[in-house]
Amino acid sequence: MATTEAPSRSHWRFRRGLGGEVLAEILGTFTLVLLGCGSVAVAVAALPESGRQAAEFGPANWLIIIWGWGFGVVFGVYVAGGISGAHINPAVTLAFALRRAFPWYKVVPYWLAQVVGAFLAAAVVYAVYAPAINAFNRTSGVVRSESLDTFAIFATFPADYFGGSWWGPLLDQIVGTAILVGLIFALIDSRNMAPGSNIGPFLIGMVVTVIGLTFGPNAGYAINPARDFGPRLWTYLAGWGDLAFPGSHEWFDFYFWIPIVGPLIGAVVGAVVYDLFIGQVLTDRPESEEGRVPE
Amino acid sequence: MATTEAPSRSHWRFRRGLGGEVLAEILGTFTLVLLGCGSVAVAVAALPESGRQAAEFGPANWLIIIWGWGFGVVFGVYVAGGISGAHINPAVTLAFALRRAFPWYKVVPYWLAQVVGAFLAAAVVYAVYAPAINAFNRTSGVVRSESLDTFAIFATFPADYFGGSWWGPLLDQIVGTAILVGLIFALIDSRNMAPGSNIGPFLIGMVVTVIGLTFGPNAGYAINPARDFGPRLWTYLAGWGDLAFPGSHEWFDFYFWIPIVGPLIGAVVGAVVYDLFIGQVLTDRPESEEGRVPE
Amino acid sequence: MATTEAPSRSHWRFRRGLGGEVLAEILGTFTLVLLGCGSVAVAVAALPESGRQAAEFGPANWLIIIWGWGFGVVFGVYVAGGISGAHINPAVTLAFALRRAFPWYKVVPYWLAQVVGAFLAAAVVYAVYAPAINAFNRTSGVVRSESLDTFAIFATFPADYFGGSWWGPLLDQIVGTAILVGLIFALIDSRNMAPGSNIGPFLIGMVVTVIGLTFGPNAGYAINPARDFGPRLWTYLAGWGDLAFPGSHEWFDFYFWIPIVGPLIGAVVGAVVYDLFIGQVLTDRPESEEGRVPE
Amino acid sequence: MATTEAPSRSHWRFRRGLGGEVLAEILGTFTLVLLGCGSVAVAVAALPESGRQAAEFGPANWLIIIWGWGFGVVFGVYVAGGISGAHINPAVTLAFALRRAFPWYKVVPYWLAQVVGAFLAAAVVYAVYAPAINAFNRTSGVVRSESLDTFAIFATFPADYFGGSWWGPLLDQIVGTAILVGLIFALIDSRNMAPGSNIGPFLIGMVVTVIGLTFGPNAGYAINPARDFGPRLWTYLAGWGDLAFPGSHEWFDFYFWIPIVGPLIGAVVGAVVYDLFIGQVLTDRPESEEGRVPE
Repeated sequence: MATTEAPSRSHWRFRRGLGGEVLAEILGTFTLVLLGCGSVAVAVAALPESGRQAAEFGPANWLIIIWGWGFGVVFGVYVAGGISGAHINPAVTLAFALRRAFPWYKVVPYWLAQVVGAFLAAAVVYAVYAPAINAFNRTSGVVRSESLDTFAIFATFPADYFGGSWWGPLLDQIVGTAILVGLIFALIDSRNMAPGSNIGPFLIGMVVTVIGLTFGPNAGYAINPARDFGPRLWTYLAGWGDLAFPGSHEWFDFYFWIPIVGPLIGAVVGAVVYDLFIGQVLTDRPESEEGRVPE
Repeated sequence: MATTEAPSRSHWRFRRGLGGEVLAEILGTFTLVLLGCGSVAVAVAALPESGRQAAEFGPANWLIIIWGWGFGVVFGVYVAGGISGAHINPAVTLAFALRRAFPWYKVVPYWLAQVVGAFLAAAVVYAVYAPAINAFNRTSGVVRSESLDTFAIFATFPADYFGGSWWGPLLDQIVGTAILVGLIFALIDSRNMAPGSNIGPFLIGMVVTVIGLTFGPNAGYAINPARDFGPRLWTYLAGWGDLAFPGSHEWFDFYFWIPIVGPLIGAVVGAVVYDLFIGQVLTDRPESEEGRVPE
Repeated sequence: MATTEAPSRSHWRFRRGLGGEVLAEILGTFTLVLLGCGSVAVAVAALPESGRQAAEFGPANWLIIIWGWGFGVVFGVYVAGGISGAHINPAVTLAFALRRAFPWYKVVPYWLAQVVGAFLAAAVVYAVYAPAINAFNRTSGVVRSESLDTFAIFATFPADYFGGSWWGPLLDQIVGTAILVGLIFALIDSRNMAPGSNIGPFLIGMVVTVIGLTFGPNAGYAINPARDFGPRLWTYLAGWGDLAFPGSHEWFDFYFWIPIVGPLIGAVVGAVVYDLFIGQVLTDRPESEEGRVPE
Repeated sequence: MATTEAPSRSHWRFRRGLGGEVLAEILGTFTLVLLGCGSVAVAVAALPESGRQAAEFGPANWLIIIWGWGFGVVFGVYVAGGISGAHINPAVTLAFALRRAFPWYKVVPYWLAQVVGAFLAAAVVYAVYAPAINAFNRTSGVVRSESLDTFAIFATFPADYFGGSWWGPLLDQIVGTAILVGLIFALIDSRNMAPGSNIGPFLIGMVVTVIGLTFGPNAGYAINPARDFGPRLWTYLAGWGDLAFPGSHEWFDFYFWIPIVGPLIGAVVGAVVYDLFIGQVLTDRPESEEGRVPE
């Protein structure tokens, strides 16, 4: 979720061939999803008071989740940033290809690496939390394929107030990912106020924290196709059945495509809005007016 | 909420004509209000346990709100800072015009841009949260124009312990905004201990977080006329009626002007207090005594 | 709570005569206490669910308080740091006089300024929160001089599990302030790993946050004689009576001196421990071995 | 938990003989455990609403604990970093000896210093919290050696959903410590995106915060043999009996070795994974391609 191809004077550039970049995207996305899904596991299954029906997280549980995913991004970017630019999100990769000259031939390898990293992270979360998950379902008296609660550890679904509409959660994913990509573009734009001292990844993670605080409970703030699809694939193989694919439950049906398509649209929206309101203004200025980054 | 005209050696200066600045103020204020109002929507309508009467947020809900508004400011400033100085608040613009030589002819364009950005953000929050808002009101058995809870997502009103007094919430808004502007003046004063590495916007956002923690529940800590007036206008058009204008409910009446006038007064107070206690002392020193900012 | 006289290469040094420093200590301590006491007012009297017996804060309320006091320190230091070194705490001033060559003739003026700033802040908190305080006491059915809850907004007292012992809370104040001063000495020691880019004040505030998280509920973590004595004086004048002076209630008696004496002892302990374990080792090294602060 | 021997251009290097380093490791680990165990004492015994059965922390209590341990690491590293590199964890020391050329002859002295620091910190926490601990046990109607709650202040044990298995908590400790060491290696790698301005220790502490948020409740996230063994030794001497050694209770038996062995294995795993995916890629690049750390 960082970058490599900012127009000029970018500090985060490619450093090596595609092979190393793919490895870095795998480990970066692995880090993100390991920490993110782990935090939901804590809120759902490990802290006993958390035993509730799906989507009924109280506000204190929600704080655990938003800090977990936020710091997951922080450290995913610190892990991969020096090699691949740490996109760790197919929607971010798409935005960079469209608006920051990221080479198109790398898009599909990045996407695959991100899904692989997310899938592997789901497997590790499952390996550690299987006892807690099974105990939780036993206590709740449900089998795994009926348990939206434990499914929520891995992948996303819409709040019941959307009432089966696909437009509601799709719009939510578009808005959430537009915020993500627009703010990443701001935070790495050295002509604007990009933070120095390599503190940028911390702030990029806090973008995800604030999206969780503001648009998270609507549809689980995937805002990242790999973050949702990789673990969803794992849950399908591990017995959550229709909840995973096609993504169906009482109030939603055939849902799996929304956290893929929504973020890809939203990323383009966020990138274009940033460039229309800010980026082009900065581009139009004569070079000599460019701001100095305070040391 | 940052600056451009600090007396000397300021790093955040105008970079282009008024047009670009207006665009930047729109997008910066939009970012602030989108994230801020979104966090209240999460606390009020999206996390099921949060279904409560107005102003009865528990402390965990309150933490969601204070981090949401705080990071809303952080990222609003990173978005707009490089172009407009990121006031994103008419009270801040007034303080800079009075005490930091911000040109008066730009004040009204900035104010209008800030209100437009805030209004648009309210519209987007509404577009995403209408299903949650309607479900919440249905469960509570009220119609929209009676629902202080869902009105609270967008605009502010006083706590019931003020008992209809307008002085109580006005004083609260003056104190809150004086803290905001006084601390912004401290954080951008390069003769004092202004943070480097462009980390200032993070700390300016944390100022708003701490105001929420300390003076927030009295009157919703607008501390920003645009942040309150823009979304209030939206709620008026969207059916909240008298709650929006003139701002009336059981224990308050004709309230809408307080989060406009209070912040404008408070901003002047904060600016003058900072300059009396700190700014003038720094100005009086010979130049050679000025502190070095540690690198 | 920062410094001016670190042995060498300190970036925070005096910049002007004692008059300006006294003004800065007043405004810095004012900022600290305004935000700190304000956060307790939110937890006790403004968030309705918080209506509880004294010292019975739940953990979510406690989080509001620890962030409030922590950011209170952060911004108190940013306000005063460039002029006075931002001690904003008589115990810190004592430690600097004893171990960092802060001039003894300035100690009493600093102490007075700190008490004045804290007293004025308590007055402003009271002005804003009097309606909430009175409503809270009315609901609880107590008069002000019986209300430990609303007294807790301003000054400190020991937890009931100390059972009237004065040694328990005194030890707590010694340990808490030793942590504070020891860590301040670490954070400003440019021979160690002192943070650059003027980000030190943020971390100094987080020291107070973590003391609240770890030793706060025992005796209200005054760890600062002015922070307790100034607002205590206010409460005495405003009608809390014996709770303020001599500091007496069911399980404690004549308590007011402990948050004065404990922090002064603890500050010396913390300073000496840091210097024994770390400072002297750094001093003994040849100059050429000194670490570089990474830029 | 920082470092000294990063391959090249490391800013955190040894500065003096082993004696000073041992002192620094003692005080650094002391700081970590003093703050960490103190935060659990707050959640268990000092905030009255926290009186619960062992391992039944609610999410708001859990937030107190994860910020407490996280900032404990932050400040432990700032205290010791300039002298010893601030490992403050035997597992980190092992990883540096294996993968970053930390001299093997120093490993055992570091380990002993870390255990001594942790033991002394447990003693101070006990000295301050004995009244709260005794009151808590009296209220719960148990004697100390039966109280898993108050034992939890000092040392760790597995969640009941592991049902007596040793593999579950061992795997948890391996995963948790692998995250810790892998991310430390990322954060101090100047060829990657290591933060500048000495802000690294803050982020290293946040690694421990996020491990608590994601893998904490399974087995108490020791992820540090000294952090568990030192305080465990104290509890054994202070009357917690079998809970401490061999570490036995209803659903676990002979547990004490797992928070020693698990972290040592996990540290090696984390170090190797980082180097395979990232470190070697960076090493293979020609020097001229190395990234610049933005100032």
